[in-house]
Amino acid sequence: MSKPSMEKIVALCKRRGLIFQDSEIYGGQNGFWDYGPLGVLLKRNVREAWWHDMVGSHDELEAPAGAPSPFDMVGVETSIIMHPQVWKCSGHYDLFHDFMVDCRETKSRYRFDHVVGQFATAKHAKEDDAEPVTLFITVAGDSDDTGDALITRACEVFGLKKKKADRIEWSGSITPLSNAVELPEFSWDTTVGPEASKPGTLTEPREFNLMFKTTLGALGGDADAAFLRPETAQGIFVNFKNVLDSSRVKIPFGVAQVGKSFRNEITPRNFTFRSREFEQMEIEFFCHPNQSSDWYQYWRERRFAWYKGLGISEENLILREHHKEELAHYSVGTADIEYAFPFLDDGEYGELEGVAHRGDFDLRSHTEGKLVNKGGELVVEEGEDGKPKYRGSGKDLSYFDDQSRERFIPHVIEPSAGADRATLAFICEAYYEDEQPDDKGNMQSRTVMRFHPRIAPIKVAVLPLIKKEGMPEKAAEIYRGFKKAGIEAFYDQQGAIGRRYRRQDEAGTPFCVTIDGETASDGKVTLRDRDSLEQSRIAVDEIVAAISEKVRG
Amino acid sequence: MSKPSMEKIVALCKRRGLIFQDSEIYGGQNGFWDYGPLGVLLKRNVREAWWHDMVGSHDELEAPAGAPSPFDMVGVETSIIMHPQVWKCSGHYDLFHDFMVDCRETKSRYRFDHVVGQFATAKHAKEDDAEPVTLFITVAGDSDDTGDALITRACEVFGLKKKKADRIEWSGSITPLSNAVELPEFSWDTTVGPEASKPGTLTEPREFNLMFKTTLGALGGDADAAFLRPETAQGIFVNFKNVLDSSRVKIPFGVAQVGKSFRNEITPRNFTFRSREFEQMEIEFFCHPNQSSDWYQYWRERRFAWYKGLGISEENLILREHHKEELAHYSVGTADIEYAFPFLDDGEYGELEGVAHRGDFDLRSHTEGKLVNKGGELVVEEGEDGKPKYRGSGKDLSYFDDQSRERFIPHVIEPSAGADRATLAFICEAYYEDEQPDDKGNMQSRTVMRFHPRIAPIKVAVLPLIKKEGMPEKAAEIYRGFKKAGIEAFYDQQGAIGRRYRRQDEAGTPFCVTIDGETASDGKVTLRDRDSLEQSRIAVDEIVAAISEKVRG
Repeated sequence: MSKPSMEKIVALCKRRGLIFQDSEIYGGQNGFWDYGPLGVLLKRNVREAWWHDMVGSHDELEAPAGAPSPFDMVGVETSIIMHPQVWKCSGHYDLFHDFMVDCRETKSRYRFDHVVGQFATAKHAKEDDAEPVTLFITVAGDSDDTGDALITRACEVFGLKKKKADRIEWSGSITPLSNAVELPEFSWDTTVGPEASKPGTLTEPREFNLMFKTTLGALGGDADAAFLRPETAQGIFVNFKNVLDSSRVKIPFGVAQVGKSFRNEITPRNFTFRSREFEQMEIEFFCHPNQSSDWYQYWRERRFAWYKGLGISEENLILREHHKEELAHYSVGTADIEYAFPFLDDGEYGELEGVAHRGDFDLRSHTEGKLVNKGGELVVEEGEDGKPKYRGSGKDLSYFDDQSRERFIPHVIEPSAGADRATLAFICEAYYEDEQPDDKGNMQSRTVMRFHPRIAPIKVAVLPLIKKEGMPEKAAEIYRGFKKAGIEAFYDQQGAIGRRYRRQDEAGTPFCVTIDGETASDGKVTLRDRDSLEQSRIAVDEIVAAISEKVRG
Repeated sequence: MSKPSMEKIVALCKRRGLIFQDSEIYGGQNGFWDYGPLGVLLKRNVREAWWHDMVGSHDELEAPAGAPSPFDMVGVETSIIMHPQVWKCSGHYDLFHDFMVDCRETKSRYRFDHVVGQFATAKHAKEDDAEPVTLFITVAGDSDDTGDALITRACEVFGLKKKKADRIEWSGSITPLSNAVELPEFSWDTTVGPEASKPGTLTEPREFNLMFKTTLGALGGDADAAFLRPETAQGIFVNFKNVLDSSRVKIPFGVAQVGKSFRNEITPRNFTFRSREFEQMEIEFFCHPNQSSDWYQYWRERRFAWYKGLGISEENLILREHHKEELAHYSVGTADIEYAFPFLDDGEYGELEGVAHRGDFDLRSHTEGKLVNKGGELVVEEGEDGKPKYRGSGKDLSYFDDQSRERFIPHVIEPSAGADRATLAFICEAYYEDEQPDDKGNMQSRTVMRFHPRIAPIKVAVLPLIKKEGMPEKAAEIYRGFKKAGIEAFYDQQGAIGRRYRRQDEAGTPFCVTIDGETASDGKVTLRDRDSLEQSRIAVDEIVAAISEKVRG
């Protein structure tokens, strides 16, 4: 099946109460989204599946294949507003910024890395020219726009036929690309704004920190400035010693956290994919430096498998190793788990989760002060006075292994997932349209959300065939049985049974239980499967156990 | 048992990984707290118990006694940063402030309502005076300090013996209190700062809005100002129409939300009780105006019972109806569920949850604009130009009942619980010290956290008696069985069994399962109960079901 359109997905999300624009009655807020009744259930299930699989029911006594064992997984929940020094030592205060540019023509503002790819020079700008044209596309920064789109756009502005352009392949790298063609010098005069009608309208880029700033206390001075966390990870690092001292974990172990983070994105877009307020599910996994490469491999594979296990098809999911040029200055390796979101062109993928090998960067920074790369070595950054630019905590964040009598600073593997992005991917993956016969046998188009039963918002709908002959009463009894067993159930007695089935298909409910005229005599109900559309008879007193079995694991 | 000391509770929270000071390695941040490995489990259980009991397994087909039925309960999760107009219409922009005062002597800053009670005038300030002394205490604002503490403090500063003072009873009301004694005129000269050595050091109060402010986008102007929500409730109100349109709920119904809120408290204190970042569990229950009194009663009782059902003893819990003077200008009635926190004096209580009858204030405000009370009527507040001061959304937030063909603006009952306060109350309530014999029969002091099994962080510890004879292997197998069944289990083979029991007692683990030398032959383990200390033998293949039964419901 080809990709569903984002328009249809966004419309379904609003219509069925999955996701609403935040503050919609006041015109909405760009980059903020609210989850409705169905969306809360879905997102809770995504969070719970993650926690259950990574922490709660993770079997700490069992060895992962090919990796050291045993290992512990524990959780923390830390503050959104942390001490400002945290962000200075983590590097976010100095380095966590985007460059933005303005378009003089349209007055729009863009992220530099989203538009600089549009820099283009055409050798022959005349459309009917029989000569081949060469188009130069340069790209800087970490763009999630793609070469194809850029070339198309540049061709439009320069009046070129795309097929005549020497195609320069896009690789997603930040390196300027060249296929044996000579690149001209970069010039703002030939840079094209996304909505501009001519080149050269963009301003030079200005720096812009992505952390939301606020003020603690009543005085309001700069000394009281504080920031909303741009990631949950730092809350784990600064609590490393507290976790060690209060629990009985031994290296290797992981600390997990689920929580909101905030980034003042210049151009939030693509529904919930790039928003200003979002939820993360992060693990910091602490291990011995000698074993960090093994654990990096382990977590890449384990996290990739997690998405597949919850229904993301292999064809829509890739594990992409970052190029060396893409790596943060402290990172030994990073792999992105990426999904083929419908707002992307075919063959393109957007980040769901990054699995990063962070070395000892974080624990050392919070001990010594902000680290920077100097000739391949991580050293404490110095200010103009030759003193450390930002003081670390001075607390010893090393680890003492009482078996080997060795003291070391653990290495860190960080699988960092976006709860909203995962939820969006599950929604996109679930969306499916087909035709099914209605009550009269006429074919009708049907939208069905094929959520994996574990994350489906509602697990089972309980439907009395008609509103009499004791069917509603029996249905209510069954419904209560599901509720009591902790299975999310929905009771519906309104309308023709076919319409009720379709409402549940659109909500992604995997199972429907129908109480009909024979239930009273044979003690059975009809169990309908959302995906196979198969219907079977099952005894009432087995139904809770049967559904429970199907929606777990 | 007398109240445990807060010092002991705070120390235990840090030692056992329940609650840490936020950013502690950087000196901490006043008013922010982090949950550690054990604390996350506890808080998750508190949240889940609330959601399960109020929403997830709430039986929407069942009638509450004495109230209309059936009713629906659904959830939302809305943004922390909402459209600024939301807070103008809700009244928070203009009205959500505290008054603060500074002490010229100590340079400390206080909430006005926390110190103005210390205003005191002594008729006779000489300690040995044989004449009776009269002490005047006036109170303004909604203080959670109490008369007793104020009188004690004032006596100290004025050098009076407390027993000689005419006691003026405290009622918690905002009305100046008088027991047939004439109150002197208020004067800042006789107001006593909490840490001052003499009267008259406090400045006059200044207004201070409690919402944290930030800026959206890159421009940074006042037009882009936004606020961190001070309550989750408004996210529900502005989504009222979206919830109605997307789900099939009919009035009466409730919308629930769990999430972080932020208040820039001038003087955060009492551990997590008054912090700047906190988590709420709120319900907005929408009903017909004629039935709102019944529902107000219903929710007061249901929420009060919820705390009792999770182990808060009746003697530490009160349901306190607000005095008329305490009510917000829109509120028909509010009752607080209050707990006897250990940081309060005997007989005093601190708010766990407010259950408020909000009438149609919120939905009307978001339709028409900010409402104010004018001669008993709620009317849209006008600016100096005679136009509405803040424009509402203009969207119709009324409800149409298709049975009665009636259109009306629903009334709202709001049970608003604090997740951190509930967690703190459960911790305080659980804390218990006694003496128990150790392995050699000597009496040892023991700290035991008597958490209700439903909210206990760890449900069961699995302990092989010794580290040989196959006991660890058998224990690991049992441990895995618990994990697989979704029961939070802890494996511990380190140290004498008595010490291991005490570690679990301190963590609040209700059950310990010990694998001993007889397990291999009789297929049984020892089940130890944390509270009764009773030990019984139980078959290994029944243990998961037995614990599961004990920790649910």
